[in-house]
Amino acid sequence: MSGLIDRLRTCVGAAHVRSEGDLAAWERDWSGRYQGKALAVVSPGSTQEAAEVVRACAQAGVSVVPQGGNTGMVGGGVPDASGTQVVVSTRRLDRVRAVDTANLTMTVEAGCILQAVQEQAQARGLLFPLSLAAEGSCTIGGNLATNAGGTQVLRYGNARELCLGLEVVTAQGEVWNGLSGLRKDNTGYDLRDLFIGSEGTLGLITAATLKLQPRPGAQLTAWAVLDSVAQAVALLDLARGELGPGLTSFELMSRSSIGLLAAHHPTRHPLPPEGPWSVLVEASGTGGEAALAECLERLFEQAMTRGLVRDVVLASSLAQSQALWQAREALPLAQASAGPALRHDIAVPISAIDGFLQETDAYLARTFEGVQIRCFGHLGDGNLHYNMQAPAGVDAHAYLARHQAAIHDAVWRRVTACGGSIAAEHGIGQKMVDPLHRFKSPVALGLMRAIKQGLDPRGLFNPGRVLGEVSS
Amino acid sequence: MSGLIDRLRTCVGAAHVRSEGDLAAWERDWSGRYQGKALAVVSPGSTQEAAEVVRACAQAGVSVVPQGGNTGMVGGGVPDASGTQVVVSTRRLDRVRAVDTANLTMTVEAGCILQAVQEQAQARGLLFPLSLAAEGSCTIGGNLATNAGGTQVLRYGNARELCLGLEVVTAQGEVWNGLSGLRKDNTGYDLRDLFIGSEGTLGLITAATLKLQPRPGAQLTAWAVLDSVAQAVALLDLARGELGPGLTSFELMSRSSIGLLAAHHPTRHPLPPEGPWSVLVEASGTGGEAALAECLERLFEQAMTRGLVRDVVLASSLAQSQALWQAREALPLAQASAGPALRHDIAVPISAIDGFLQETDAYLARTFEGVQIRCFGHLGDGNLHYNMQAPAGVDAHAYLARHQAAIHDAVWRRVTACGGSIAAEHGIGQKMVDPLHRFKSPVALGLMRAIKQGLDPRGLFNPGRVLGEVSS
Repeated sequence: MSGLIDRLRTCVGAAHVRSEGDLAAWERDWSGRYQGKALAVVSPGSTQEAAEVVRACAQAGVSVVPQGGNTGMVGGGVPDASGTQVVVSTRRLDRVRAVDTANLTMTVEAGCILQAVQEQAQARGLLFPLSLAAEGSCTIGGNLATNAGGTQVLRYGNARELCLGLEVVTAQGEVWNGLSGLRKDNTGYDLRDLFIGSEGTLGLITAATLKLQPRPGAQLTAWAVLDSVAQAVALLDLARGELGPGLTSFELMSRSSIGLLAAHHPTRHPLPPEGPWSVLVEASGTGGEAALAECLERLFEQAMTRGLVRDVVLASSLAQSQALWQAREALPLAQASAGPALRHDIAVPISAIDGFLQETDAYLARTFEGVQIRCFGHLGDGNLHYNMQAPAGVDAHAYLARHQAAIHDAVWRRVTACGGSIAAEHGIGQKMVDPLHRFKSPVALGLMRAIKQGLDPRGLFNPGRVLGEVSS
Repeated sequence: MSGLIDRLRTCVGAAHVRSEGDLAAWERDWSGRYQGKALAVVSPGSTQEAAEVVRACAQAGVSVVPQGGNTGMVGGGVPDASGTQVVVSTRRLDRVRAVDTANLTMTVEAGCILQAVQEQAQARGLLFPLSLAAEGSCTIGGNLATNAGGTQVLRYGNARELCLGLEVVTAQGEVWNGLSGLRKDNTGYDLRDLFIGSEGTLGLITAATLKLQPRPGAQLTAWAVLDSVAQAVALLDLARGELGPGLTSFELMSRSSIGLLAAHHPTRHPLPPEGPWSVLVEASGTGGEAALAECLERLFEQAMTRGLVRDVVLASSLAQSQALWQAREALPLAQASAGPALRHDIAVPISAIDGFLQETDAYLARTFEGVQIRCFGHLGDGNLHYNMQAPAGVDAHAYLARHQAAIHDAVWRRVTACGGSIAAEHGIGQKMVDPLHRFKSPVALGLMRAIKQGLDPRGLFNPGRVLGEVSS
C-alpha cells in the first residue's frame, strides 16, 4: 500500500495525505458511536485532484469513503475498521465558483460549509433555505449526498429540491460535469437525483449548482399549546390554507421533550405555558410584517374558535422569535444530556400520524413500563424524531440494550404498516443497513443493486453502506 | 408471434389486444411526423395484467413501447416501423385509487387524463398544478415518463416535483410499489426520479402518488408590452421580489409570434397594444383579490418608473384573464397554421437569455435572409420555444429542408455554449436522439448507458429511444 500512499502524495501534495498520527477527526463520527480505521485521509484541492485520487484508489483496489463535515447521524461517512479504506475529505474544495443573481443560482464546491453558503446568499439579498442543526460544520456535499432535510422542508423541500446540478467523480475516475443552472432539462436520465441521497456509494460529489430564493421581507414565529396530535394536524391543515406558501415551518414537540429543557438546556426567554403538545409555526411573506401578523392572527382566531389551540404566543421581537427556535433546536441536545436513547427518524403520511402515535405510544407504554417517549420533529413534513429513553431510576444503558431490538421492531413495523419511512432524513449509512433490508421491498433493493452494479461494478465507493455489501 | 398474441389475449382479454385493422391511433403521433407499425396494441386493465404483458413480451423477445395519451412532441411513444414491437397502452388504467386531503396527496393510475386529475383535486378544494396544452388528452403516466413542464413550473416545478411516488413494472416483469405519500424518505437510491423523465425506456409506469397544493384564493393576470428581452428579464427579477411564491407564471411572446394570431387564431377580446415583446404575468395568493391587485399594481408602478414596461393591462375579469391566456396558448396553433417550422425546445440560464437571443437572432437574420423567428415560452423557467419559419413567398418545405441542418446546428451550438439544454421540456424520443449524442457529454451518456444496462439489460423497453440503441 505504500505505493498508493506515494501516488496520493504526488496527486495532492504530501501535506494533504494523512496516514499516521491521530486521525480520529476523520475516523470517528461526532457521536462517538462509529469508529473506524483509515489507510489514509486524503484532501484533494481541486476536482482534477479528486479524480486522480479516485483513479489511484481504483487501480490499487482500495475503496474510497467520501467525507464532508463528518456530522452524519448514521455512520455513513467514516471508514470501516479494516484499515484498508481511503477517506477522501472534500474540505479543501471550498470555493464559491459563481453566483448568478438573475438566474437565482450559486455554484459551490462540495466542501463549502452550509452556513457559509447561507451567508453568501444573504449577502446578495437572497436566501438558501436549507437549515439544520449542524449548519455551522456540515458541508454542502454531505448535505446533498445524504439529501438533508431540516426545518424549512415544508416550504422549500429537501436538499434534493434545492439543487439544480452536480459535478461528480465517477467510479471510473471520470468527471461528470452536470453543473446546471436550468429549471428545465429533459436530455436523458436524471443523474443528479441518483447521486443525491446515495450517501457516497455511487460517486464523489465535488461541486453543485444550488437554487436560491428571493428573501421574504417579513418572518414571524408563533408557539401554540395543544391537547392532542389530532389538533396539531388540524391546525396544520388550517395554516396551509391560510398561509399557503407563506407557511415555512411547522414543528411539533411533546411535553416529555420540552420538559427536559429546564434541567438540561434552559432558554433565555420563558416559554409559553406547558401543555401536552406544542407547535412552533413560522410564517414568511413579501407583503410586510403587519400583513403577515394579520394572517397569523386570523389563523389562530379560527383555531381558537374551533377549539384546536389551548394557548398561543406570537413572538413580538426577533429576540423572542430566536428564543422560541432555540428551544426547539435544543431538544436533541437536552435529550442527549438526559441520557442514552433509542432513536427513530421516521416519516408517515400526515393523515396517519395521529393514529400511528396513539397506537405505538400505547403499545410501548404497555410493554415497556415507564419507558420515556421523546417525540419532536417536522410535523409539516410528516417527519418525527421518535425516541425512547429508559424509565427513571434504572440503569439506562442496560435497559436500552435489553429492549433495543423489540422497541425498534415495534416502531419500524408500525411505521411500515402505515406506508411510512424508517429513515426519513438521516439516511441509512451503517446504522440502518439491516433494517433497510428487513423493511424495504425486495424489488426496490434489486433495482438499487442493479444501479450500484451498473455505475460502480467493482464496489469502489463506500462499500457496505446503504446496500450493505461489497460487490467485488 | 401468434403464440405471443394468444398469450396476450389470455392476459388481458381478447377485446384489449388489437393486432389487425387500423391501428393508426397508436402507431402515428398526433403531428403525423412519426408513423410506425405495431405487432399489437395491448391495453391491460390492472397493474397485474400489465406485469403479465411485460413478462410475456420479455419471454418472446419482443420489445415494449409504453404509450399514454400519444400527445408527445418527439415521437417517443409510437412504435418503430419494424412491425415487431408491442404498444402497451395505459388508457384502461384510469382509476383514482385514493385522495388524502390531510396529506395533500392523490394516488392515480397512469392512464388518468391530466384534466381529470386537475378536476379531482379541484372538487376537493385543492390544486394539482401541472398545466399544459394537451391536458385534455395526455395521461399522467405520460406526463411523468416525460417529466412534462407547462405554464406553472415557475411556482410549482415540473412533473417531477409534483410526484411523491410511483408504481412501475420493471424489465424483469416485477412490480415495484414505490407509491409513497411521504415528503421525506431517505431509504436508498431515488428510484422515482430515475423513472420520471426516462421516456418509457427503463420501465412501465402504472400508477403515481401526486402532490396536491392548497388552492390559492385569488388569481390575477396581467399583460405587459416591452421593448426588449433585457427588460423582460429585469421585470421578472422585480416580480420575483415583489410577489415571491405568488408569481405563478411569466410567459414571453415575440411580436412575430403574436402577429400570427390575427390571421390564424383571432381572440375574442382585443389584445393590448402591440410592441416588440409581450409578457403574460400570473399572480396568485391567499390574501384575497384586493391585496393581490395591490401587489401587482405596485409591481408595475415600479416597472414603469424604471422604464421597463411600455404598457400594461391588468385583466379586470375572469373572462378577460382567460382571453389573455387563450392568446398565449394559441401561439403554437397559429404557428402551425402559418406553415411548417423548425422547432427548438430550449432552456438557458435566465441571465443568458438576452445575450443568447441577440446573438442567435442576428446570426440567423444575417445567414438566412428573411427567415421568420417565432419565439415564445416560459421565461420564468428559462425555457423558450424558438422556432423558425420560411421567408414569405418561398416554398416553405423546400426552404426548411435545405437549411434544416444548418439552422438546428446554429441554435443548438449556441444553447450548449451558454450552458443550456437542447430538450427542455419535450424530451428526446426519436427526434432528438442524434442531437443528444452530439451535445451531451460522453461521461453523462456513459452513465446513462450503464443505468439502462443495469435495469433493462435485454433492451426490452422502448429500444432506440433516448439512448438510440438496442442493447440486446
